[in-house]
Parts: sequence; C-alpha cells; structure tokens
Amino acid sequence: MSDPCLPGEFEIIRRYFMQRQRDDAGIVLGQGDDCALLSPTPGCRLAVSVDTSLADVHFPLEAPAEAIGHRALAVNLSDLAAMGARPRWFVLALTLAEVDESWLADFAHGLYSLARQHDIALVGGDITRGRELSMTITVHGELPAEAGITRCGARPGDLLAVTGALGGAHGGLRAWFDGERSADNPLLDAYLRPRPRVDAGIALRDLVSAGLDISDGLLADLRHLCDGAGTGARLDAEAIPLAPGLVAALGADQALQAALGGGDDYQLLVALPPQNEAAARRALGGALHVIGHVTSEPGIQGVSLKSPGWQHFYNSASGSGAAPNGHGEHP
Amino acid sequence: MSDPCLPGEFEIIRRYFMQRQRDDAGIVLGQGDDCALLSPTPGCRLAVSVDTSLADVHFPLEAPAEAIGHRALAVNLSDLAAMGARPRWFVLALTLAEVDESWLADFAHGLYSLARQHDIALVGGDITRGRELSMTITVHGELPAEAGITRCGARPGDLLAVTGALGGAHGGLRAWFDGERSADNPLLDAYLRPRPRVDAGIALRDLVSAGLDISDGLLADLRHLCDGAGTGARLDAEAIPLAPGLVAALGADQALQAALGGGDDYQLLVALPPQNEAAARRALGGALHVIGHVTSEPGIQGVSLKSPGWQHFYNSASGSGAAPNGHGEHP
Repeated sequence: MSDPCLPGEFEIIRRYFMQRQRDDAGIVLGQGDDCALLSPTPGCRLAVSVDTSLADVHFPLEAPAEAIGHRALAVNLSDLAAMGARPRWFVLALTLAEVDESWLADFAHGLYSLARQHDIALVGGDITRGRELSMTITVHGELPAEAGITRCGARPGDLLAVTGALGGAHGGLRAWFDGERSADNPLLDAYLRPRPRVDAGIALRDLVSAGLDISDGLLADLRHLCDGAGTGARLDAEAIPLAPGLVAALGADQALQAALGGGDDYQLLVALPPQNEAAARRALGGALHVIGHVTSEPGIQGVSLKSPGWQHFYNSASGSGAAPNGHGEHP
Repeated sequence: MSDPCLPGEFEIIRRYFMQRQRDDAGIVLGQGDDCALLSPTPGCRLAVSVDTSLADVHFPLEAPAEAIGHRALAVNLSDLAAMGARPRWFVLALTLAEVDESWLADFAHGLYSLARQHDIALVGGDITRGRELSMTITVHGELPAEAGITRCGARPGDLLAVTGALGGAHGGLRAWFDGERSADNPLLDAYLRPRPRVDAGIALRDLVSAGLDISDGLLADLRHLCDGAGTGARLDAEAIPLAPGLVAALGADQALQAALGGGDDYQLLVALPPQNEAAARRALGGALHVIGHVTSEPGIQGVSLKSPGWQHFYNSASGSGAAPNGHGEHP
C-alpha cells in the first residue's frame, strides 16, 4: 500500500507541524485528538475566516516553499487585520500532490515564522493526497464585544486612507512572469511574502467607521466599501502611495494602474471620520495615507482603470483565468 | 474575462450558500465581511476540527451532489460528536472544477439539511476554481469547561462499546464499485450519508473515560484509543453489531472483516467504566453495544483482520491509493 519510505500523515504532522506553542495560547487540547479544545477569552467575540490557496491559481507552484507557507497564512491573517481582531488560533488543511520532505520543512518554516510573529497557534489540521497542491487555512481571532471593523459603516465626508504602499505585489507578479527570481527584489518579495497589517487593524479599530483589506485591488475593494454603505468615493491619484521601485519598474502610468487594480497588497483601506485623522496617524506611527474621501453620490471619481483586464490573481495573469479566485472575500 | 453566463463567486454564494440561520445562533456578523463574528457561550470551551473531502479520494465524483454535501459536513460533525461537543458554526472552502448550477443546488441542499438537523450554522466560506472538486470544512462546537471526550483516558477494566452497527459503509462502498446506485440500498446509504452521532457524544460525555469516532475502521481506531492510554483490548467478535444486510451481501466472514477494517461508519467507540454501563445504555435509549474490554496488556486480542489490505478510503478501494487520506484524525 503505502511506500514505507514515505512518511504517512501522522509522521508528517509529527515532524513538521507540531512545533511548541506558548503556554498562554489558550489551548486546552492541541493536535492529536478529534478536535482541538480552546479557551476563548471571556467577553470577547470570535472572528473566523477561511481562505484556500491553490497552486498556480493563487501562487506559483514553483515559488519557494517557505513563501508558500508564509503566504497561505498571511492572506488569512489579513482578514483578521481587516476586522481589527487579535489572532489566536488556526487550523490547516493541506493537500499534497507529492510528499517532498525538504519542501515540507521549508513550507512549515515559512508558516510558523509568520505565526510566531503574530502570536497565532496551529491547533489542528488535515493532510490529504490529491492531484494539486492546495492549502485551506481557517483563522480565529478575538475582539472586545463591541469592537470590530466592518465593511458597511462608511459615511459621506469620511476620509479614505490606506496603511501603506500599493501596487508592489502586482509589480512582483509581473517580475515573476518575466523570470525574476531574486530574493532581493522588493516587489517580488511584496508578492510572495505579504505582511498582513494585524497591528494596524487593532490600532485603528476604534477610530474608523469602516474598513477592509486590499486583496482584490484598491478600486475593487473600494467598491465593496461603497456598496456596503450606499456611498461613492473621490480619490486623489497623486496621493496614492506607490510601492518603492514600482515606478522604476513599470513607469508612472502603469505603476498607478498596478496600485489601482493590482491587488494582493494586503494593506488596509479604511473610512475615517476627519476628526479621527490625527489619532489614527499617531496610532500608526505616521504610516497613514489619506487618498480621498467618501461621497454621497455613487461611483468612484478621480481615477480609473485604463484596462479592464487588470486582475490580481495568478491564473488571470498567466492567461488561464476565468473563475472566482479572489482572496479576502468572505462570503 | 469571466463567462457572463457563469455565476461568479459572490453570485454562487448568494444563490446557494446564504440560507437563513436561526436568530439564536450566536452570529453577530455572518457571511459577507472579512470575517464572521461569533458570540461564544460564556464559560464554554471551543472544539474545532477541520477535514478535507476530495473527489475520487474520499467520495466518488459521480456520487449524488446532495450526498457529497451531506457527507462533507457529516465527517466533520462526527469529530464534534467524538468530543461530545454541541455543534455551533462551520465555514466551507469549496474548490470547483466546473460550475454546474444544478449540482450546486443539490450540494447545498444536502449540506444545509444536515446542518439544520444538528443546529450548526454556515457562517463563512471561500469558493475557488481548481482542477479537482474538493471541500474543506472547519466545524466549531462548544463544551462545558471541564467536559469533553478525549482519546487518552481508557483504563484497564473499562468496557469497550460502540453506538451502532459497523461495516455498513464498507459494504456500501463495495456495492458502489459493483455498479449499485439504488437509493434504497441501506448499505450504500450508510456509505454516502453517514449519520454523525452528535447526540450520542453529548449523552455519553460525562459517563465515558475515553472515546473517538470510527472513521478509519474499528481496529485502527481502537488502536488509537489503546495508544492514547498505554493499554490493550480484548474484543468479542460475536458481540460486534453488524449493519443490517451486511451478512446477506458479503457473507458472515467478510461482514465481520468489514466491521473490523472497513471504516467510514462514524459510530462512536468508547471506553466505559463498568459502573456507568447502565446509565450509558439509558442515555442512548438502549443503543449501546458492549464489544469487549480494555486490558493492561498491550495489543488487541479476540479478533483479527484477515487481510492487511482492508482500508476505508475510496482511493485504496479503487486501486490508486498510496497516501494518507484517513478522516477523523486530527493532527
């Protein structure tokens, strides 16, 4: 039946996915039983989100395994960041097309490194063998009972702000398709190893009227924010922060288009009452970029995508895309 | 880009996966934002488990869509049953190889029908397009703070008992491979639509010393129970309840082998202090089958698998199996 030289599910888990967790992680029972048993913080709400990452759809199969592990967790942490929730626990369902121990070690390294940075504990999982590599992660965070950033509270007059530079991930994806593999390319790094803005979400959660993470592209996600509140928006193209190196790589026009349509940047986009701007700026140590404001008229004014073909996901960039593969949308 | 005749992710979710939930389901914010926001019951622990179901690995791709939806949730609910947890919420990550609206409607029907039976609410999800159909479900249940059935408490002298007949799912899988498709075949139904023993788990949780759900086969799962406690077991082959029709379908010898090795039955196997037997029997309305007892000597006595090739999962039965695809094991 099984090749005795290949580790089975239990052995894979024991070798790569049972790293020690902090004693205060709220884990009554971790991996190894039918369920994990967790102790939620009294009075808190639980924020839950799930995202699947598929090889050659959401990331290149040939990407470094460590980056694949990082990225799979990062896109989920970004959903917690978008709510302002504190990360607590996650479970991982991993489907492997082959068992490659060196790949697994690197994948686990990328996953655990990011998990440690954000104090989120792996508490359970499932490993299956399939025809294509994929991973589905469900993250759990906590929020005080009345807190939490939603998509539906933006009001006309609110400032629109982002927590960092945009377009870098799309620039990195283009670099990847151009054959660039250098670990020193900051654009490529932005694509392969997005930094979820967990601390920014927590810092902003009591100051903003609405927000989300930019996974589908600034304009697409802004549209979600407007739809959620029945509003429109006016953006100032000059104010949109572009990823360092993006203009040099793509030229000014394409750099702006990448910021507007590129997606995968995982910065936060928030609607902010003007009286909270100074406090929000202080809360982020200055890293807040006001890029426009919410309007009562519907529609987005001030900027536009030149080509409707801009899509954030890998399979559209590689020419085979047709289907819904956006990340960060939580049905 | 996308075929305008095919619904996108949001439209699929709106049409099939946004059915109304009970008002008392503890959902502050359901589908549609970056995370679901949930209200855990004060003082309770959270039980979490994840399982992936892959087409032609865990179920036949050609199985009825309604049964695929039922089964994907059932195997996860069974993990909650194994802990004695009350089901609360689940999230669904669905990877579709194609978008077939009639299939989706049937799949959602099977999923929601079982969800309603067990009062578990769908609170979020992710839909992606991939090369093979799969679904990963993460379930969340609740338990009083000191309650919960684990795998590691069995003691020598405890009775071993199961909550219902075994072998039916394996009989059904064999019938499927023999071309049987009748909805009236109870063995096939046992395989395609397993009934997770949620109520039995809750009823037994304060009476048993250990337990789990039988997903990998009685002997394989009994081994987990023994390993968890450093014990052995003696079984009485005559006492093992066989699924109705199994002996007629397979003959007495093969029927017993199916019960010992077949898996996928999702009954509970518990270790029970003898003084709790009467209470446990009452708690289950009589449906408790004592099949042996826990011994201090390691190893399993009294029965044996005649062929080591017995495996519970589809891809071994179909001849392509090599990898770890057991269900119900929670790393």
